Amino acid sequence: MAKGKKTIDQVGEFGFIRSIMKGTVNVPDNVIRGIGDDCAVIAPDAGKVLLITTDLLLEGIHFLSGKISYWELGAKAVAVNLSDIAAMGGVPRHLFVSMAIPRGMPMDDLNGLYAGMKEKCGKYGVNLLGGDTSASPGGLFLNVTVIGEADGATVLYRKGASPGDRVYVTGTLGDAEAGLRLLKGDLTGSDEIGKRLIAAHNRPEPQLAAGRLIAESMLASAMIDLSDGLVSDLGQVCRESRVGACIFAEHLPLSEALKAVCSANTLDPLEFALSGGEDYELLFTVPRNNADSLEKHLEEEGHAFFRVGEIINGKGVHLVSPEGTERAITRSGFDHFAPVAQPRRKA
Amino acid sequence: MAKGKKTIDQVGEFGFIRSIMKGTVNVPDNVIRGIGDDCAVIAPDAGKVLLITTDLLLEGIHFLSGKISYWELGAKAVAVNLSDIAAMGGVPRHLFVSMAIPRGMPMDDLNGLYAGMKEKCGKYGVNLLGGDTSASPGGLFLNVTVIGEADGATVLYRKGASPGDRVYVTGTLGDAEAGLRLLKGDLTGSDEIGKRLIAAHNRPEPQLAAGRLIAESMLASAMIDLSDGLVSDLGQVCRESRVGACIFAEHLPLSEALKAVCSANTLDPLEFALSGGEDYELLFTVPRNNADSLEKHLEEEGHAFFRVGEIINGKGVHLVSPEGTERAITRSGFDHFAPVAQPRRKA
Repeated sequence: MAKGKKTIDQVGEFGFIRSIMKGTVNVPDNVIRGIGDDCAVIAPDAGKVLLITTDLLLEGIHFLSGKISYWELGAKAVAVNLSDIAAMGGVPRHLFVSMAIPRGMPMDDLNGLYAGMKEKCGKYGVNLLGGDTSASPGGLFLNVTVIGEADGATVLYRKGASPGDRVYVTGTLGDAEAGLRLLKGDLTGSDEIGKRLIAAHNRPEPQLAAGRLIAESMLASAMIDLSDGLVSDLGQVCRESRVGACIFAEHLPLSEALKAVCSANTLDPLEFALSGGEDYELLFTVPRNNADSLEKHLEEEGHAFFRVGEIINGKGVHLVSPEGTERAITRSGFDHFAPVAQPRRKA
Repeated sequence: MAKGKKTIDQVGEFGFIRSIMKGTVNVPDNVIRGIGDDCAVIAPDAGKVLLITTDLLLEGIHFLSGKISYWELGAKAVAVNLSDIAAMGGVPRHLFVSMAIPRGMPMDDLNGLYAGMKEKCGKYGVNLLGGDTSASPGGLFLNVTVIGEADGATVLYRKGASPGDRVYVTGTLGDAEAGLRLLKGDLTGSDEIGKRLIAAHNRPEPQLAAGRLIAESMLASAMIDLSDGLVSDLGQVCRESRVGACIFAEHLPLSEALKAVCSANTLDPLEFALSGGEDYELLFTVPRNNADSLEKHLEEEGHAFFRVGEIINGKGVHLVSPEGTERAITRSGFDHFAPVAQPRRKA
């Protein structure tokens, strides 16, 4: 039997663990023990705070096999956790992955998954230090935990926005949602455009450099990453900060690809920008007096930013049309147990 | 509809998260932000190292619903992770739980699960600081990550055992395995005895105080927790330390309950002690010159210990019979993908 055709059952759990231990420590400083003991052991930098985040990725819920390559899935599992570190302004350091693997899964697929994870870890200087592996009674289950570091004084929370603050995002909105709908066959689009939008969904990049610059400038008041959609995630900032927000419809950054696919399918790209999930851009708020200064910093470092709204007294998120009319748009955010099917994150 | 009959679908993800946020921070020192932001934020104690461990618990693989209460399952999910912290000699501090929940799961069951987790967290001063929640496409899926602390100089690894070192365990062996087989109906036993053995399986306690004493004494050379079975876990210590080990059959600590149930079922309790999993006792090795001193410390603090073997030159684990005959016993440890069904951990 050719080596590439082996399955996890033939290699076994211990053989598999040995095979993934290579190339897991990218930045050895502070790592005392990685994979292979009861616990990983790290020595955190004195004076830093630690940021911890964890995310589930389940087959049939967060992804559908066949719609994303295993390499992309591994890379995305890392990227979405790093995005949470970016949203606090931190530097990701160590990663742990638990995986329940269906029996008979080809080693080629598993190796692809780990290659994607290792590529993303390597790119951002993150060490893969441990995890747990089990057979799965169903599909592939992944859980990734990331530990990051930051200067405590610079960490940005969801809480902290005040009326008058400007609301910014770091990139175009709604592309990942359009990519997901293309993957599911709910939309049609040209190959070239489809490719770009599907890549937005399957290959997100965490905005670590921008997040760190925004936090370390100490000019912003709150930050969150856009995983559930603009209205939902801005709503979280509003709830935590006890404020409301306006979004200016005409200021929402839309990619040419999104506009083209929406035009071809007679859909409003605004809807994608407002409620499409998984863009993994950052949303941040900036007191008016700091705005010019932070914009200048971001420009100098080549980071994109778009002013999309303003924090107001009150509650909830309101949409202001180009004509100046305003309406409340309340969305509860993606609820995994909502009675009505919300297919948005199901791919 | 009575409140207790609600399901997760009726309460929703956000309602559920709000409901579990109460009573999650037991030791607020160092906790800057718990549940509710993109990341949890903690300030680790200066000069300490951090210990990180993560464990999966899957319905149908690690537990079968109906064989363990939800309270016990929550408590066990915490306990097995704390056991890994105990095995390094650390103090557990913070816990993160990811959970994929089947649609329609009664809130009573979920609340029981969280009550069990919170009880164990409270008992050991651990903060529940975050996690992730999703609907499950199959059964209940749990992943727990624990962060602990220790003085770097005192941490005990699997590596470190030398020929001549004595091998100890902290409690009786094989009880959890017998409890599991009783639960599955593979063994029969009296109610009283059955209850004790099933409790050993469903309600393990992490040996945190003993682990810390052993590590902080700086008299031991290696330590591991017994999750896969004595031969398998001692085998890990041997592999990491590049040594072999003898186990003295007549020294293995057996509970009266295990002996009674084995006698009633014409089985050899030795087999349970050697390869039964999930005892969550500690196994540690001690250089001969330190042994008396460490035994005295353990006695003074009221910790049980049993000398079960000795580290030798060579490889692998050998069993020495009461008559002095020796045979190699090689077991690869529980392999989730082994071709032959290993039902040991399937309950």
